[in-house]
Amino acid sequence: MTVTNKRIIFKEYPKGLPIPGQTTTFDASQTIDLDNVPLNGGILVKLLVLSLEPYIMARMQPFMPNMYQIGDMIECFGIGVVLRSEKPAFQVGDHLHGSYPFQEYSVLRQTESFTKIHNEYNLPWSAFVGIAGLPGKTAYFGWKEHSRAKKGEVAFVTSGAGAVGSFVIQLAKRDGMKVIASAGSDDKVEFLKELGADVAFNYKTTKTSEILTKEGPINVYWDNVGGETLEAALNAAAKHARFIECGMISAYDGSSKPIPNLISIIIKEISINGFIVSTLSPKYLETFEREVPALVASKELMYREDVTRGLENVEVAFGNLMKGALTGKGVVIMADK
Amino acid sequence: MTVTNKRIIFKEYPKGLPIPGQTTTFDASQTIDLDNVPLNGGILVKLLVLSLEPYIMARMQPFMPNMYQIGDMIECFGIGVVLRSEKPAFQVGDHLHGSYPFQEYSVLRQTESFTKIHNEYNLPWSAFVGIAGLPGKTAYFGWKEHSRAKKGEVAFVTSGAGAVGSFVIQLAKRDGMKVIASAGSDDKVEFLKELGADVAFNYKTTKTSEILTKEGPINVYWDNVGGETLEAALNAAAKHARFIECGMISAYDGSSKPIPNLISIIIKEISINGFIVSTLSPKYLETFEREVPALVASKELMYREDVTRGLENVEVAFGNLMKGALTGKGVVIMADK
Repeated sequence: MTVTNKRIIFKEYPKGLPIPGQTTTFDASQTIDLDNVPLNGGILVKLLVLSLEPYIMARMQPFMPNMYQIGDMIECFGIGVVLRSEKPAFQVGDHLHGSYPFQEYSVLRQTESFTKIHNEYNLPWSAFVGIAGLPGKTAYFGWKEHSRAKKGEVAFVTSGAGAVGSFVIQLAKRDGMKVIASAGSDDKVEFLKELGADVAFNYKTTKTSEILTKEGPINVYWDNVGGETLEAALNAAAKHARFIECGMISAYDGSSKPIPNLISIIIKEISINGFIVSTLSPKYLETFEREVPALVASKELMYREDVTRGLENVEVAFGNLMKGALTGKGVVIMADK
Repeated sequence: MTVTNKRIIFKEYPKGLPIPGQTTTFDASQTIDLDNVPLNGGILVKLLVLSLEPYIMARMQPFMPNMYQIGDMIECFGIGVVLRSEKPAFQVGDHLHGSYPFQEYSVLRQTESFTKIHNEYNLPWSAFVGIAGLPGKTAYFGWKEHSRAKKGEVAFVTSGAGAVGSFVIQLAKRDGMKVIASAGSDDKVEFLKELGADVAFNYKTTKTSEILTKEGPINVYWDNVGGETLEAALNAAAKHARFIECGMISAYDGSSKPIPNLISIIIKEISINGFIVSTLSPKYLETFEREVPALVASKELMYREDVTRGLENVEVAFGNLMKGALTGKGVVIMADK
């Protein structure tokens, strides 16, 4: 059976926010013969779920080590189902998590980074690009490794309604901390409260620095944004505060403003730690897989998704993500099975 | 006996580098009766040695927590000898290290932060504001706590000819590292080589980024300067590099430029640690006092001083320090005994 194989191509480096059709382009010109396309020892996978992540924006910058090449497909994490396989490790019907090109069907030969999802608790597949997947691991590994959380201390979590931040809020609460969390809309602020945040605010209508002055000082800062928010967090940091650098969404468009108070790092003896999930994986993966899906299944851990359907709508959805207009983890459902 | 009691007053917040007579002023209008000035339970101390430190510049900024007040005396670390005492803990003739107002004679009632120097190895008193004193502790404590030095790795040390940096170079060499060190004059570069630096360069005539590209990547960055050098270090950092934030001399004048590549903290999983000597003191002081003065006495540890004589010359000497024009630890000898 020959079908259209829609895809998303990287067209040019964005100046500022990505523009659908200009930064990227939707292309429906390709077809694929699902029964006969040669696998050459690889697998044919149908994409079910794509994850929308700020990381995509980062990889659109020419200074990134693994930047996208102009003319290539955008690529990010997703979940696909195996339609055909010439690899003994993968069977037809297996659901695989990995970094997929943004197209409906892919023949993959390099599959080292693809892992089979067992899904013992029968969670929706999309959970595995969210709380039970990489964003969940990001939150969990980073928090366990760098927070040195103490009961009664104060944590400040940015992008609190996102896939990572919403889990971090819950981890901080489980560790007995007071949690200040920010997000970019009143609707999201409601969600922060549902997650258990003690102080939740809309950073677009309330000044972060004012909230932190009132509710801080902060002992742990979960940084998803960098820039002025990082500056405010440095000002509001307690002695020996731990800053966990998870993302700097404010820097992904290539702009940067001075952070005049970096010297607080010294004065307050702050520890700032960047981390990458894969490095921490050997240390925390087993505990994560034992604990997290079970807690999701039993609803002890909450998550929220902003669902887009179909590859045609990916570009607009990604733009909305970067504008902060998604509520919950951004996922694209390409097909239900 | 009544004598003049010369002093240095803080006059106005500096814009840029400090200007003698404008930022600060030398004042010889005061006298003191050494025999009869009331101690009210305190001690009368004659200042012998004053330490010139970039920290003085930091405390001239209105955003610092312990900034100087306009009209007050400048204050920094020094060594004095007790002339009279009404405190049982201190005897006439004791040599005390502490934070002194910049004047020849002081009556001190709050002496909690003053410590008696034992000087078992008969080092020059000025060594106790240098390698055997606070700068030495800064280098030693910070290095031991945060470097996680590994033999064969690469360290980059800024302000390598200064009191802290020159000790850090020697600590890194003792740990078997390759050391890249920078300073601001060719004369200082010669000193860096004497200290054992494998790569020594004048950052005013050679681009730091070029040296680091050629000689890096770097595993440990000893940051005394911040700003563009911090940016270059982020670019040249190896995976899991440790940045030890000791000073940000480039920020002490209140200026700040963007550091566009802070995102490297995440990509390279960098750990950035600010520290303050007093916090680490309980952990390392005993080892420091056992090891360092002995190594200085046996010349296994080297140090260099830039000596100014007399309080009249402090302002110009401090200006030279901030311009990077001192070679070695800046000390002011007020009197020999």
